[in-house]
Amino acid sequence: MSLLIVGSVAYDSIKTPFGEVDRALGGSALYASMSASFYSPVNMVAVVGSDFSEKESEYLNSRNINTEGLIRKPGETFFWRGEYSFNLNEAHTLETKLNVFEDFRPKLSSKLKKSQYVFLANIDPDIQMDVLDQMVEPKFVALDSMNLWLDIKKEKVLDVISRVDALIINEEEIRQLTDEYNVLTAVKKIFQTGLKYLIIKRGEYGVLFFEKSEPHKIFSLPSYPLEVVKDPTGAGDSFAGGFMGFLAKADQVNEIQLRKAVVIGTVMASINVEDFSLNRFKAIQEEDIYKRLEDFRNILHFEEINV
Amino acid sequence: MSLLIVGSVAYDSIKTPFGEVDRALGGSALYASMSASFYSPVNMVAVVGSDFSEKESEYLNSRNINTEGLIRKPGETFFWRGEYSFNLNEAHTLETKLNVFEDFRPKLSSKLKKSQYVFLANIDPDIQMDVLDQMVEPKFVALDSMNLWLDIKKEKVLDVISRVDALIINEEEIRQLTDEYNVLTAVKKIFQTGLKYLIIKRGEYGVLFFEKSEPHKIFSLPSYPLEVVKDPTGAGDSFAGGFMGFLAKADQVNEIQLRKAVVIGTVMASINVEDFSLNRFKAIQEEDIYKRLEDFRNILHFEEINV
Repeated sequence: MSLLIVGSVAYDSIKTPFGEVDRALGGSALYASMSASFYSPVNMVAVVGSDFSEKESEYLNSRNINTEGLIRKPGETFFWRGEYSFNLNEAHTLETKLNVFEDFRPKLSSKLKKSQYVFLANIDPDIQMDVLDQMVEPKFVALDSMNLWLDIKKEKVLDVISRVDALIINEEEIRQLTDEYNVLTAVKKIFQTGLKYLIIKRGEYGVLFFEKSEPHKIFSLPSYPLEVVKDPTGAGDSFAGGFMGFLAKADQVNEIQLRKAVVIGTVMASINVEDFSLNRFKAIQEEDIYKRLEDFRNILHFEEINV
Repeated sequence: MSLLIVGSVAYDSIKTPFGEVDRALGGSALYASMSASFYSPVNMVAVVGSDFSEKESEYLNSRNINTEGLIRKPGETFFWRGEYSFNLNEAHTLETKLNVFEDFRPKLSSKLKKSQYVFLANIDPDIQMDVLDQMVEPKFVALDSMNLWLDIKKEKVLDVISRVDALIINEEEIRQLTDEYNVLTAVKKIFQTGLKYLIIKRGEYGVLFFEKSEPHKIFSLPSYPLEVVKDPTGAGDSFAGGFMGFLAKADQVNEIQLRKAVVIGTVMASINVEDFSLNRFKAIQEEDIYKRLEDFRNILHFEEINV
């Protein structure tokens, strides 16, 4: 089914203990779209400057990513410079230039407004709300955010959360959002908003998935263990993209499909971080994904226990 | 099969954000033995002072824990005072009194020397080596240690590691032991010592289990998610006890049984931390363990994925 992804396209300059890249393609919408495109066609909505080449658009189109909703504006594309130390769980932002992103207010075409599956990738919650207002009866909407927006627009983030189906957020952010240290207590609190599903990303420690019910259901999945993590940028977006792409393909929102989608998201994130920027997504074949999924199954497997 | 557990018995004074206890029973051997005793009879070797009451010994005996190897000496039992903040992953030691533990050098009876399954719980590596020297062809020996011994007797710890089958250690400690930040790189390094199995404990994030082979096999298991963690003291020992108790019961050391043993260890640790000291182990019934195991299965379950 139709999948809409709204977020940022950026040029990133990134340094990690394992190398660096200068002005490499990135951004929440782009990572998520590339990841999702292995499962479902994507309509990507974002804004770029005149430094974004037509060739890039053509490449995305060739990968099942429709860029009709990609706005081009005079000026430069959003730019981010960041660095990671050996603790790859945490990025240190050195420079952020919003550039053309500053007054990004996407107006969706009548076709895009009817998208069934929607991922509001990490951007200003005002933009997320604006997009949400334009949607016509979507089947499933997932939302990401980040600590920056929780610092300066927490109420707005909570407003958006109350209107979506699923929130995909990291462990520190759910604590910040709820003012609760224990994650399970935080989950109870966030489910008072009307949200149905919550996914807590724990970086190299995997993911917790919660479904609102009495008591709420939990699915816990570790990450795929990797020896080489070259660049964790976009891991969360790649997770969300794989999750949404799989769900749009299955076109069924239920516990069984959602859990599978979490596994797919985890696999896609593990692939993405093996190289800088979108390099791994550009290089892999479908067989690489099957292979990783199979490996992951073996890593998680244990037999029935009779005590 | 016969299971020998050597380590400490202690009186602990513990404060967490959820309460406190004064001079409650604890120690690595005691937590491990209580946990293991749900699966297998245990011979516990440790030392206590004259403040340790005969009633405690009788209670342990009634729980399938043989205390013939429990040495009684004039003086006071090992004492530890610790505190946890909201981040329950880390204990802050406020006071340690070795007391009778100071010159603990256990001499095993000829029966205990022939134990098939041996857990060397966290104590001075010199004592661990001394016990190892007394063993007559054990089938499976597992070892625990802690940062204190890595700080002051790292070479000795490495010596002991090179002579056991399995090392059970936490994430920070494996880094300290190998001087490698990436856990998978650390694993490669530690497997050069002759060790066959490695279990890395990650607290609330679960456990990684490695089996030496080319390439080495991995089993990854998240923890059982808990809303209430009253006191994490003894979680690692409870894990190891459940792991060893299950293995001794199965009396087969292979990948299938080892993975099941990791699951059992995880379940036992999750039970132990729900209350202070050994209170939960004293209170639970076998049905509580079945129930938790069943819940855990559901939390980990996802169906076959065809992408």
